[in-house]
Amino acid sequence: MVSIETTQDVQDMARGAVLLGTGGGGDPYVGELFVREQIRNGRVPRVVAPEALDDDAFVLSIAGIGAPTVIVEQLVSEKTLLRLLARAEAFYGRRVDALISAEIGGANSVFPLALSAISGVPVVDADGIGRAVPQLEMTTFSIYGVKATPCLLMDDAGNIVTVDAVNDRTAEDLCRSIVTAMGSMAFSAIYPMTGKQVRECAVLGTLSQALGIGQAIRKGRDEDGNPFDRLLAYLNGHDGRVARILFDGKVCDVVHETRDGWHWGLVTLQDLRNDSDRFTIEIRNEFIIARHNGAPATMVPDLISVLDRESAEPLTAEMLTYGQRVKVLGFSADPMLRRPESLEVLGPRLFGLDCDFVPLEDLAPAPELALAD
Amino acid sequence: MVSIETTQDVQDMARGAVLLGTGGGGDPYVGELFVREQIRNGRVPRVVAPEALDDDAFVLSIAGIGAPTVIVEQLVSEKTLLRLLARAEAFYGRRVDALISAEIGGANSVFPLALSAISGVPVVDADGIGRAVPQLEMTTFSIYGVKATPCLLMDDAGNIVTVDAVNDRTAEDLCRSIVTAMGSMAFSAIYPMTGKQVRECAVLGTLSQALGIGQAIRKGRDEDGNPFDRLLAYLNGHDGRVARILFDGKVCDVVHETRDGWHWGLVTLQDLRNDSDRFTIEIRNEFIIARHNGAPATMVPDLISVLDRESAEPLTAEMLTYGQRVKVLGFSADPMLRRPESLEVLGPRLFGLDCDFVPLEDLAPAPELALAD
Repeated sequence: MVSIETTQDVQDMARGAVLLGTGGGGDPYVGELFVREQIRNGRVPRVVAPEALDDDAFVLSIAGIGAPTVIVEQLVSEKTLLRLLARAEAFYGRRVDALISAEIGGANSVFPLALSAISGVPVVDADGIGRAVPQLEMTTFSIYGVKATPCLLMDDAGNIVTVDAVNDRTAEDLCRSIVTAMGSMAFSAIYPMTGKQVRECAVLGTLSQALGIGQAIRKGRDEDGNPFDRLLAYLNGHDGRVARILFDGKVCDVVHETRDGWHWGLVTLQDLRNDSDRFTIEIRNEFIIARHNGAPATMVPDLISVLDRESAEPLTAEMLTYGQRVKVLGFSADPMLRRPESLEVLGPRLFGLDCDFVPLEDLAPAPELALAD
Repeated sequence: MVSIETTQDVQDMARGAVLLGTGGGGDPYVGELFVREQIRNGRVPRVVAPEALDDDAFVLSIAGIGAPTVIVEQLVSEKTLLRLLARAEAFYGRRVDALISAEIGGANSVFPLALSAISGVPVVDADGIGRAVPQLEMTTFSIYGVKATPCLLMDDAGNIVTVDAVNDRTAEDLCRSIVTAMGSMAFSAIYPMTGKQVRECAVLGTLSQALGIGQAIRKGRDEDGNPFDRLLAYLNGHDGRVARILFDGKVCDVVHETRDGWHWGLVTLQDLRNDSDRFTIEIRNEFIIARHNGAPATMVPDLISVLDRESAEPLTAEMLTYGQRVKVLGFSADPMLRRPESLEVLGPRLFGLDCDFVPLEDLAPAPELALAD
């Protein structure tokens, strides 16, 4: 079983979580600092395998909800996390047997670990999407039968709101409004489920995967002097999934806009030696579509990640600025996300794109630029 | 004890509630229709006196929260009201002994009567402000020691949200956001209190007062041919409170604007025979200040009501249009609202006015135009 017991493990896992965040999900850095501090004080998070859960174990997601720009600045409060757990147990009328990440991509990878470290409740090696998604109804939990509500929202001031919505689309609207009134960041106890439901509705092994990604990048960097080879070897070695470098170049234009509560944006890259070779990435909280000279190269729910060209450090969308040298990675989504029932809820059209999903491996492969250097 | 047992009683009470709404609070018409229909079917609301409540009786407000423009269009659902009561009793873990209006001014005067008619739970002859106010923390409940939360919000679709806020100002922000996400209208079970607290924190006898106002207008109209004399006699005959006609004229300009979730507006009247004699009323959901040729004539928390010049039918702010012939009534607020602790929460400055409260009776009296015709 995977363990996240050292500060190095936490750093590696968080690095992998940024890659899986596909530009969004919020930077896990503040939560990572909290967990590293706990480990230094001897309070180590526990991780359990999905198969170790009893069928009727009570499993709950602990997730930050809000604006990534606020999540990245708000320190994690031990008091709030413990109070949330206590209030959630009173609200659901059950002891929580395990925690689970709602989405492994970004900040919500670390919050369950943070609560685990201070409470002793273990975290399941799984999550609700295998990447980051912007809305509650887009998780595999929701798609495959676990409702987000009844859920509980709490802010650091001590305000507590519970939501019992008729469906997860409505839950999303209600929670979003509440969190905005709470100052654009709150913690939620959400997606109550059983151990059996974890095995049916979660994307399994994603905490291990985030750790593995982070380790591959670090070890490739330290031992090989080329983090990309080891990263690609790691990603291509699992479950028939495909990873490829889509483009290698520099950021020549970035447009960011906050509209209707979303982070919209467009990033344009150009080849380092050929100005007219262009690559664009559209942002809608996450990276939703990458195009090489206009032709789609990867689209949601497949993952698009932007990595520093030398260190392979994954970058969130809000970190991108003019002049950065980066490589763009395409990574096929977990098979659960590519099924028709998933694509109905998180396919390209749900993000405002006028196209149906085409898997990364069926799109025209980008030139193997990664190998050219 | 007052009773509201006939459709005529309901109509009279609702007419009085519009006057006490001081331009806001939402038109009670839709709720009034519901209660009249219940009475025709033999389901009569029950009213109890505050002094009849046991000290530890459990009393709850049932209030519509939302945009007056939506409240006035949304039919009252028997199913929603009964479900709200059932869920509230489960949530608080107590049987509800009596209902109470959160504000007698406007639509929230009738919703407790509507639920009383279909559930048999009586309504206390009292409310939380004696007029209408735009925010949860501005009620006498809140000012004198009853918290708005924990409260429960429900929409007709069946979504249920509970709020437990650190204070009523925050509760207001949270509830407002939730209601907006619910489609700008929801029912709340709110301000849980004891019978003893009703007697300490409520404005007493206001259901009787609304009924008395409505009856005075109707009887004056039908029996005297002049509804204003009987209305003024009724209003001036209670508790040392003062009512006077501030202006008699026609609406020559109306500006409405929805800004920051508020209904802002300015109504300008002119004398029927003297164009240069001007009277203005500022709207911020309710009428907040009336000025005669620039000099304050009545200000919040004292009541300003606009009545049809012939029938004395009270008009809500959104009903006002160019050319209407109206009389403007000033009515001193209940003494509870004029105490320093109340003025700190609902004095003129809280509505953005740059002045301290001056009681209606200390302001320069308007010419006795009412008597001139």
